[in-house]
Amino acid sequence: MTDTAVAPRTPVTLLGAGAMGTALARAWLAAGHPVTVWNRTPARAEALAAEGAAVAPSAAAAVAAHRLVVVCLLDDASVGEALDGADLTGRDLVNLTTGTPGEGRARAAWAEARGARFVDGGIMAVPPMIGVPESGGYVFYSGSPELFEEHRDTLAVPAGIRWVGTDPGFAALHDVALLSAMNGMFAGMLHAFALVRGEDIAPKDFAPLLAGWLTAMAPAVHQTAEQLQSGDYTKGVVSNLAMQAAGIPTFLRTAEEQRVSPELLTPYLDLMRERVAQGHGDEDGTGMIELLDLRGRS
Amino acid sequence: MTDTAVAPRTPVTLLGAGAMGTALARAWLAAGHPVTVWNRTPARAEALAAEGAAVAPSAAAAVAAHRLVVVCLLDDASVGEALDGADLTGRDLVNLTTGTPGEGRARAAWAEARGARFVDGGIMAVPPMIGVPESGGYVFYSGSPELFEEHRDTLAVPAGIRWVGTDPGFAALHDVALLSAMNGMFAGMLHAFALVRGEDIAPKDFAPLLAGWLTAMAPAVHQTAEQLQSGDYTKGVVSNLAMQAAGIPTFLRTAEEQRVSPELLTPYLDLMRERVAQGHGDEDGTGMIELLDLRGRS
Ligand SMILES: NC(=O)c1ccc[n+]([C@@H]2O[C@H](COP(=O)([O-])OP(=O)(O)OC[C@H]3O[C@@H](n4cnc5c(N)ncnc54)[C@H](OP(=O)(O)O)[C@@H]3O)[C@@H](O)[C@H]2O)c1
Ligand SMILES: NC(=O)c1ccc[n+]([C@@H]2O[C@H](COP(=O)([O-])OP(=O)(O)OC[C@H]3O[C@@H](n4cnc5c(N)ncnc54)[C@H](OP(=O)(O)O)[C@@H]3O)[C@@H](O)[C@H]2O)c1
Repeated sequence: MTDTAVAPRTPVTLLGAGAMGTALARAWLAAGHPVTVWNRTPARAEALAAEGAAVAPSAAAAVAAHRLVVVCLLDDASVGEALDGADLTGRDLVNLTTGTPGEGRARAAWAEARGARFVDGGIMAVPPMIGVPESGGYVFYSGSPELFEEHRDTLAVPAGIRWVGTDPGFAALHDVALLSAMNGMFAGMLHAFALVRGEDIAPKDFAPLLAGWLTAMAPAVHQTAEQLQSGDYTKGVVSNLAMQAAGIPTFLRTAEEQRVSPELLTPYLDLMRERVAQGHGDEDGTGMIELLDLRGRS
Repeated sequence: MTDTAVAPRTPVTLLGAGAMGTALARAWLAAGHPVTVWNRTPARAEALAAEGAAVAPSAAAAVAAHRLVVVCLLDDASVGEALDGADLTGRDLVNLTTGTPGEGRARAAWAEARGARFVDGGIMAVPPMIGVPESGGYVFYSGSPELFEEHRDTLAVPAGIRWVGTDPGFAALHDVALLSAMNGMFAGMLHAFALVRGEDIAPKDFAPLLAGWLTAMAPAVHQTAEQLQSGDYTKGVVSNLAMQAAGIPTFLRTAEEQRVSPELLTPYLDLMRERVAQGHGDEDGTGMIELLDLRGRS
């Protein structure tokens, strides 16, 4: 490398050279940031060393190397273990390890008690999307706004950034909420593919219809949001819950005819029936949220 | 109305002036098609009479009026009841009543035995979308290709048309498959909204994130389709099932922390675990389809 006139990039310490950690390190190295990496199993950091990263002999040494410390380990327990002997005083800790909102909040308190500023992150991307802006991948961030503002440009290198608030649990909450919704959508897709399977319908012909339909229906979230905000679950309803519930036998009989287990559908259909039975057939699906709310039930 | 030089529009008999039947009738009337309507409860057809439709005193009389007979009643049983005394010889019967694929096939055989051509339809729209091309609403059609070709322009008046094959069960199969997938997506959305509820997160701020994420993830169907077509569920996998299953505790603990019932999520998570336990942790989610297939299990 030759010296250039550009401003020096913020050095980054990275704990964890797993699939995601390695992708993050490569994105920062490619953008000219000095990177010091540590991994529990040293062999896994070797490839990064060859690409210009400094490899630290211990997590504590890695933390001592730079002020900005990014952690991307298996789970919250491994974060506690890895950082056990490290001096966090004056550090800016960015935790990109997946966890629950509660873990994010507890880890924030833990870090602050050790003299560090803390931000939690939830990565909405897979490793091949890291360092590829056109992939649309991004990271939810929450916690210390000062840390986030100071390191915003550095954090924006591997993926898009979305600030969701000062509550250090909010990044994880947004992350898990979106992934949970995705699992619901994937469950629906799987059931749909199972229904047409065994018929003379090519999956490749069916897929665009399915993707198009789900994409067209996704904006229904805005109606749900408005109803939640107003508290009026009957506002703007086109197909009320009673009408939707009338269709349940068709869903179940079709599954039976096609010899497909209805197990991925039944909980939602049961919830519909329960809400209608409670006298809320004039509402939209939104009202079923009351049945999921365990605070309301206890 | 004054006479114009345009070709006369195909007259349409419509059985059923419920919410959907009324919307269909209005679309055809607006496009200049003569419409003869019958409804079990005559009062419900009165508005259409005022808008130019002829009202028939019985279903049999309505069927006798025109060759093209569109039926949009509550369910398949009501179609059988309504058409019981009608002479279907030489009629073109288009059944837009929601049903199962099996009902579509049986109704096709029934109609053909009575001397009619038959097409079944699955309406992917709600009444306010009928007659509004920009709404994106459409109808799946399957059955007699001759009937469909002859009446294609007339059928295209109320909503877009998608031909899905000569099997008269395929319209219903596509309809139910897409609506089932939508229910899965809505279940996921509902769980997501439930998770953020009670936190200082406005539903209106959360909704665009959720819609954006699901829209970005919907194209995953194409990967699923390719894997189903090749039979290789490990092809092109980025996050294999074992990695996805490792995240299950985070989903469940987050629901618990937020006091949300996990009932809408657990069947899919259980299916993941079952597939991984069978030794398929290296696959994509696609492989779970084997566990839904009751033919494979019996
Ligand atoms: N991969 C993805 O698609 C993806 C997407 C979004 C978010 N994430 C999140 O990113 C984080 C890392 O994922 P990954 O894909 O990189 O996983 P991975 O490839 O399995 O790597 C796991 C990392 O955690 C380390 N580790 C595990 N237990 C440890 C302990 N007790 N002490 C110290 N280090 C420990 C591993 O070290 P060793 O090498 O020594 O085992 C390795 O560096 C996870 O929280 C994951 O949920 C991943
Ligand atoms: N509305 C939607 O959003 C929507 C969307 C897609 C598909 N569809 C399908 O369209 C069809 C009609 O739905 P809709 O919304 O119009 O329902 P609706 O408003 O409840 O109307 C039901 C119609 O069926 C008639 N009917 C019921 N039982 C009958 C019987 N035994 N004999 C004769 N007629 C009978 C009713 O006559 P009476 O007036 O005498 O009761 C009425 O005309 C259904 O299959 C529905 O699944 C509806």
